Parts: sequence; structure tokens; C-alpha cells
Amino acid sequence: MREAYLDNSATTRCFPEVARLMNKIYLEEYGNPSSMHHKGVKAEKQIIEARRTIAQILKVSDKNILFTSCGTESDNIAIIGGALANQRRGRHLITTRIEHPAVLEAMKFLESLDFEVTYLPVDSKGIVSPEAVEEAVREDTILVSVMHTNNEIGAVEPIREIARRIKKKNPAVLFHVDAVQGFGKAKIFPKQWGIDLMAVSGHKIHAPKGIGFLYIGDRVKVKNLIFGGGQQNGMRSGTENVAGIAAMGLAAKMLYQNFDSEIEKLYGLRDLLISEVSDLPNVYVNGPEGREGAPHIISLTVPGVRAEVLLHALEDKGVYVSSGSACATNRPHLSQTLEAIGLPREHMDNTIRISLSSMNTEEDVRQASEAMHELIPFLRKYTRH
Amino acid sequence: MREAYLDNSATTRCFPEVARLMNKIYLEEYGNPSSMHHKGVKAEKQIIEARRTIAQILKVSDKNILFTSCGTESDNIAIIGGALANQRRGRHLITTRIEHPAVLEAMKFLESLDFEVTYLPVDSKGIVSPEAVEEAVREDTILVSVMHTNNEIGAVEPIREIARRIKKKNPAVLFHVDAVQGFGKAKIFPKQWGIDLMAVSGHKIHAPKGIGFLYIGDRVKVKNLIFGGGQQNGMRSGTENVAGIAAMGLAAKMLYQNFDSEIEKLYGLRDLLISEVSDLPNVYVNGPEGREGAPHIISLTVPGVRAEVLLHALEDKGVYVSSGSACATNRPHLSQTLEAIGLPREHMDNTIRISLSSMNTEEDVRQASEAMHELIPFLRKYTRH
Repeated sequence: MREAYLDNSATTRCFPEVARLMNKIYLEEYGNPSSMHHKGVKAEKQIIEARRTIAQILKVSDKNILFTSCGTESDNIAIIGGALANQRRGRHLITTRIEHPAVLEAMKFLESLDFEVTYLPVDSKGIVSPEAVEEAVREDTILVSVMHTNNEIGAVEPIREIARRIKKKNPAVLFHVDAVQGFGKAKIFPKQWGIDLMAVSGHKIHAPKGIGFLYIGDRVKVKNLIFGGGQQNGMRSGTENVAGIAAMGLAAKMLYQNFDSEIEKLYGLRDLLISEVSDLPNVYVNGPEGREGAPHIISLTVPGVRAEVLLHALEDKGVYVSSGSACATNRPHLSQTLEAIGLPREHMDNTIRISLSSMNTEEDVRQASEAMHELIPFLRKYTRH
Repeated sequence: MREAYLDNSATTRCFPEVARLMNKIYLEEYGNPSSMHHKGVKAEKQIIEARRTIAQILKVSDKNILFTSCGTESDNIAIIGGALANQRRGRHLITTRIEHPAVLEAMKFLESLDFEVTYLPVDSKGIVSPEAVEEAVREDTILVSVMHTNNEIGAVEPIREIARRIKKKNPAVLFHVDAVQGFGKAKIFPKQWGIDLMAVSGHKIHAPKGIGFLYIGDRVKVKNLIFGGGQQNGMRSGTENVAGIAAMGLAAKMLYQNFDSEIEKLYGLRDLLISEVSDLPNVYVNGPEGREGAPHIISLTVPGVRAEVLLHALEDKGVYVSSGSACATNRPHLSQTLEAIGLPREHMDNTIRISLSSMNTEEDVRQASEAMHELIPFLRKYTRH
């Protein structure tokens, strides 16, 4: 059966070029970057090159890029490491109600250490108000964390405006951005925009699982969370994941090489899908519409059909989507994002997420649309709600 | 030029089968293990299988295996997470003077949080005395950390006897073993032996960099250090490195399948190398001899020749070795292990490490020996010390 993988916000397939590069490193350039001999130097060169590629995309210095084991670790270093390094200036942090658990759980941990956290609401499209962020900033605020693109509904936050207002009110406040769903889908220039910390994950951009990076601005103080051999200037001990790092560099390079046309393509696919399902009665798109939303995420509420049932029925037709957010573990939970945008409680369990990547085609979208046209009326008729 | 890679304690080449498995996961079984659809289930199965393989090798339950991003993270979770989870019982920890920085730096961090750490000495062969460990255990001791195999000289610690004495004196004390250099080279049964926590790294056993695991015994309380989506029962958030995990499972399986003959082979190569260099005047082998030492590590002191110079000269002949330990970063530092075994200060900088893996052959050893026979007299004559 033909497969339409439309769960790219959960994870992506590796670019074949990226897989090839890793294979070469596993079998040929397998040295330890800390080794003094040639094999070590070669491994280190892979790291240097990936760091340079990413730095150039972000228009920052190479030394601003810290490689980590995943987006979650990046968020944790930024938030926990940032709070611990700056707690003398205050113990107040700000975030939003729609962040990924990597941010929210790090905040909760800080609360257990007697930090205070303000959780800002969002509007019905999932957008946080820059004015509200500014108002929440106090003299003892040390860090604000706002995601770039929401993973469940594709809301793109007004990051530049938020940065501007934070820095205007209290320039000492660190601004962290969880860009796990944004990097590769948007041009983000942290240094120019006033972002101090920014978390990115490899496996959302066709690099493998187990690699991520954290942008750390000049003069931004962050405490390391892992201790050991002192790799990466002591900020992240442990032998570097050379293949993963090189993979992330190459994947980023590939994504930003034909960036504008790829993004156009994604918006085209998203528009096509939304238009295709628009004739399905009583089906709603959550989050921002058109170019205001992210190009790759479509959140659909299908009243009367349980998301899990629809997901498995679609799967039987080769279409892979997600119910809510698959970035967290698979135990059932209510989506904080859907709750925050005011989705009625009875519809939360009727919401699926379709997420695209540059590997998707019109055929994928049509396959998904056809499957939904066939399944939704049927499921509404015959399944319990 | 023929290459003899003899720096396997720094890192190993991936088994080709392991690289192939990862490639398949990158391109075909790339799902997120938290996804509810088939692609998620398949990814989760890779994790389940790897966990089972490793658990069977260690003769423990699947649920005792926590996957991490590296040996360093494993050591950190065990020591920092173990201390934080058990600090109500006391604030005293015990370790040795020859541990890897992943252990020593974690201990230093705990000292900054007002924990107290006892650093035990070792004898001239690098062995810690079980009696000394027992003596050091107090009522307020919460954790003891002793490495299985020293990474610089191959000393194999009397882990079983240490475990027995710790538990006899104070059964509540957690015993952590850094087995990064031991796993794959020794049969270790943590549950049977009274080990509570044990750290292992993938890239030392022909799996890739960026993956490790931590054995956590039943009823052992450890605080997680990374917060987020709640993967692995909340003990290590972040999307699992499926390919790395599967790779580590397969590499472990391969190593333990023909374990006895592989270990015999390694001891044979080690004996051959030691016998080949024994006619070089004024060259010493550090650490335990014969079967008392690890099968894969040979520490050689070559008075009159700087290790770095010898390393690069050997490299020019296709022979890759290490000066001291390459697991830490490449900035020059005095080896704590060599200091602890009482190596004269003037010889510390004259010490190289040769480390074998099951991929090495007699030809590799002979190539190294020939190169040393040619180089050492020459370098002694013509280079400054």
C-alpha cells in the first residue's frame, strides 16, 4: 500500500544524503574528536563544519552553538541552566501555557526549587500577546521562554516583538525560544532579534533522533547540567555525537538551501489539504490560517470521531497522522494547547494533527483527503463517540 | 598505508552490521516511538528488543535499563540523581582517585552542593582495596562509585568483593559502577553482584557515539536530571535515540555471542604486544599484568620520549594510539590515574595507551611493535625530552 507519512512534527525520515554521511562516519571517520591523532582531527572537523553551517544559517558565531542530545536537553539547559546561573538577579520566570513539556516540566522543576513561574495565556489562535509578556516582566524576572511554533496547532508566536518588548522593559532578562518546530520552517536570526537562547532538535529536520543544539548568545550565562570530560568548553561533557552533529549540519544546510521554494511548497500542500477537507461537514481547522500559521502543521477537529479511532483508520489506508502531540509519551492526556485556545472539552479528543515535511507531495495530501472523505462519515455513523 | 587503529578505548569503529541497522532505521523505521500508529510501534519495538538484549546479557529485568545519550550522562544520573534522591539518609559519598572525569566531576558538583566525598587511593597497579572501601563506609554514606575497568591502565577493580563489603556494612548504600571500559570486555552481573547502578557507553563497543545506558536496580531511587515529555517512565525525557539504542543492543549482542573466544583473542593480542615490546630497553607496562588486567588496554611508559611526539610518529606509520586518556578533551592535563599509581612525575608525559578491540588482528599488533622498535630508539636519540 502507498504510504503518506504526515506525522512530520512527531519525527521525520532522515534525508538519504544525511543517512549516507552518518554511515561514512560510523565506518570510516569514527575517531574520537578529543583524540590527538588524525582520526580525532577528522572527527573534530565534522563538528566544526556542522557548527559553522548552523551558525551561518542563524547569522551568529560558531561559538554560539552548543550541541546536545535532543531538543528537550537544549530546552532544559536553557531554562534550568539559565535560571541557576542567574538566580542572584531574581527567581521569576515567564512562559506560556502552550509550551512543549520540555519547557513546562523544566519550569515545574524550577518551581520545586522555589523559583516563581508566570504562565501566560494565548488567544483562540494560540498566539501570546507581546504586551502581556512585557507586562509580566518584573525587576526580578530572569528568563522568559516562548516557543517559536506550537507543535500542535502551528501557531507562530510574535518572537521578534516579544524580544523587543522584553529587552525594552528589562534588558537583563534572558529570552529563550523553543524553536524545535520552527527551525527549518522559518528564518530565525536570534542575535539580530534579541533572542538569547534557542533550542533545536535534529529529528524534526530529517536528521536523526539523539541530536539537538542550543544557541547561546554572547555573554549569556548558563550553568551546564552534565559534568565530565569538559567537551564543548565544559558546557556539555560526553564524547560528541559526531555523526548526529554532522547529520544535523547537513540537514540544516539542505533545508535552507532552497528555503523559499520549499516553504512555498509546504504552504501549497497545507492550503490544498485545508481546501480538500473544507467540504467535509463539521470539520474545523484550529490555529492561525494561511500564512499566519506554520507551513507544516494542520490541526483538525472532527466532532463525533475519536482521534485515536480516526488515526488508526487512516493508518489502515497508509496515512500516518497524530492525535494531539506525539512528542510526549503515548499515555493519554489532555492537550494543554487545545485547552489554552479554548477548544471545548468534548472536542479535545476529536482532534488530529497532520504535519508535513519537504518530503511530502500532492499525492500524499490527496491520499489523506480521500481517506478522510471515506472514513469520517462512516466513523461518525458507526462508532461511539 | 595500512592502518592499525589501536585507540579503541577512546572510541571504536561501528560494526558494519550495526551501521546497516541504523541506516535502515533512519530511512525506513524512522517513526517516533511515542506515536500511536504502526511506525511508532515499530520504533518502540526496536527499543524493546535492545532493552531485552542488554537485560539478558546482564541477567536483569528489561525495566532496569535506562537509555541515555552517553556514558557521561549515565554516570551523572547515577551519581547526581542518586545523591539527590537519597540525601535525606546522608550526604557522604565515596569514590576512587582513578575514576573517569564523568564520575569525578559529578562528585565535585555534589561537593558544591555541600555533599562530602571521600576519594580512595589505589595501589601501584591501580587497584582499590575492598577493605578500604568498607572502612570508608559510614552511617551517612549514601553512594559508592567505583569503576569496573580503568580507562588508562586497564586495572580491573574487585567489584564483587567491594559490593559485598559495602552491603555488609551498610545495606542502604547505593553502589554505582562505571562500566564504560568493562562492558563488552567482561561478564558483569549487577543484580547478582550487588551493584545498584551501572553506566555503559555505546561508542566503546562498536555502536555509535551519542548513546549509552544506565542499569538501575529494583527499588533504587534516582532523581531524573532531564525534564519533559516523560519518556522512559519519566526518567529520561526526550524522544528516544531509536537508531542508537538499536545499535547498542545489536553491538552488545554481537560482543557477548562469542564472548569467551573474543576475550581470549584480545588477551592473545595484548600478550603478543607486551612480549614484542619487552626487548625494547627501558619501556614499562603500567597496571596489572596478564589476566589480572583488562584484555584490551596496555599502558606503556617510554622514558625519554614525549607521548605526544611518539603518538604522532606512530600515526605517520599508520598506527593510532592515545596519550593518556582521550575520553576527556584534548587540552593537556596530568593523568590522575598515573599520578595515583605513583608513576614518577617525569614519566607521566612519556606514557601512551594502546587499546584493542575485537576488530584488531595480529598484523595490527606487529605493525605497532615494528613502528615502536623503529621509532623509540630514534626519538630517544634526536628529540628533546
